[in-house]
Amino acid sequence: MHDVLKVNVMENIHAENDHIAEHVNEDMTELGIFAINVMGAPGIGKTTTLKQIIKNLKGLKPYVIEGDIESDIDTVDLRSLGIDTFQINTFGACHLDAPLIHNAVRNIQFKEKGVLFIENIGNLVCPAEFSIGEHIRMLIVSVTDGSDKPYKYPLAFEKADVIILNKVDLMPFIDFDEEFFMKGVRALNGDVPVFKVSGKTGEGFDAVAEWIRIKSGN
Amino acid sequence: MHDVLKVNVMENIHAENDHIAEHVNEDMTELGIFAINVMGAPGIGKTTTLKQIIKNLKGLKPYVIEGDIESDIDTVDLRSLGIDTFQINTFGACHLDAPLIHNAVRNIQFKEKGVLFIENIGNLVCPAEFSIGEHIRMLIVSVTDGSDKPYKYPLAFEKADVIILNKVDLMPFIDFDEEFFMKGVRALNGDVPVFKVSGKTGEGFDAVAEWIRIKSGN
Repeated sequence: MHDVLKVNVMENIHAENDHIAEHVNEDMTELGIFAINVMGAPGIGKTTTLKQIIKNLKGLKPYVIEGDIESDIDTVDLRSLGIDTFQINTFGACHLDAPLIHNAVRNIQFKEKGVLFIENIGNLVCPAEFSIGEHIRMLIVSVTDGSDKPYKYPLAFEKADVIILNKVDLMPFIDFDEEFFMKGVRALNGDVPVFKVSGKTGEGFDAVAEWIRIKSGN
Repeated sequence: MHDVLKVNVMENIHAENDHIAEHVNEDMTELGIFAINVMGAPGIGKTTTLKQIIKNLKGLKPYVIEGDIESDIDTVDLRSLGIDTFQINTFGACHLDAPLIHNAVRNIQFKEKGVLFIENIGNLVCPAEFSIGEHIRMLIVSVTDGSDKPYKYPLAFEKADVIILNKVDLMPFIDFDEEFFMKGVRALNGDVPVFKVSGKTGEGFDAVAEWIRIKSGN
């Protein structure tokens, strides 16, 4: 097949997606819902991070959409804590897209204003290419994954509005070159805030939650 | 655009890819090169694992193709150890495919029989969908990423010919439910061998290297 056709198909997919993403964004804004696209590699601690942030939100109402290829392990976990959580399974697809979120939010009853965390598929590549109607993008990375990630996966870092550096409790047991990491981050994304946290100990999440509260305008 | 067109385009891409993958596989077999598709999430320790395996190969000649979206950090590292390493940058693409490998291997001088490690893009989703002409698929995962990975990313586990469980030196400091992990692996991929290793300490790699030697027929 012709490469030109491939490229056209991809361009059409992106244009359609962005169009729907704009609608989702407008709908969310109108409802007073601040939507956060939560991205990160598999096993980076996305759900644990969300749980810790939500614990620190102090009265700001949280909603969660869980994106997974398969399974509802995290949704069951979050619901057991009383958090309004909605599952999307992509059954193979490597990222969430705007049509999926458009469908999901039509089925969610937003009873009050608040924050909607949309946990994307665990993938440091593809999700960064697709807007899903979010207000901001939160990138979660971990010290256990090494300090070279900004150099190897630049798009995710470039497009992040906030970066969460997780698992800092393991710092004493690993080699993580924070200076090299931050140099890479700054080269891609000038003054993006970087919060250091531990999903395990809860360290650092009060600051993240406060930052979200201010950004959300609540 | 129509979903039917999208599906047709994807089917064509896969058919073309598989056709070229067969050629690559035949060429490698003819040259006495045992090709391993090395897959795993970002930061899982793919390059560190390769370095440790190669250290234990004892006379079996190693070649490496490094797949990265951007950067040649790992290639520089491997070459500094005297390992014949060839860089592929995809500049955005989330996985290696057969045409990329077909091009690469035409430019490699395989002076003697041996093992070609093809380090795929750090991604636990998309690489599993594309054959690149490999003889076997090696999936690297890490205890720091949690025990639920087989449940959330089943395809990669289903298609693996061998699984390397890395970073076991961090076991004392984290919660990793090995029984739950192995239950998930066994449900997807009956008797796939699972090797426990530490890229940091070198623990466990003699067994991995010996397994590869036997599989490669050398």
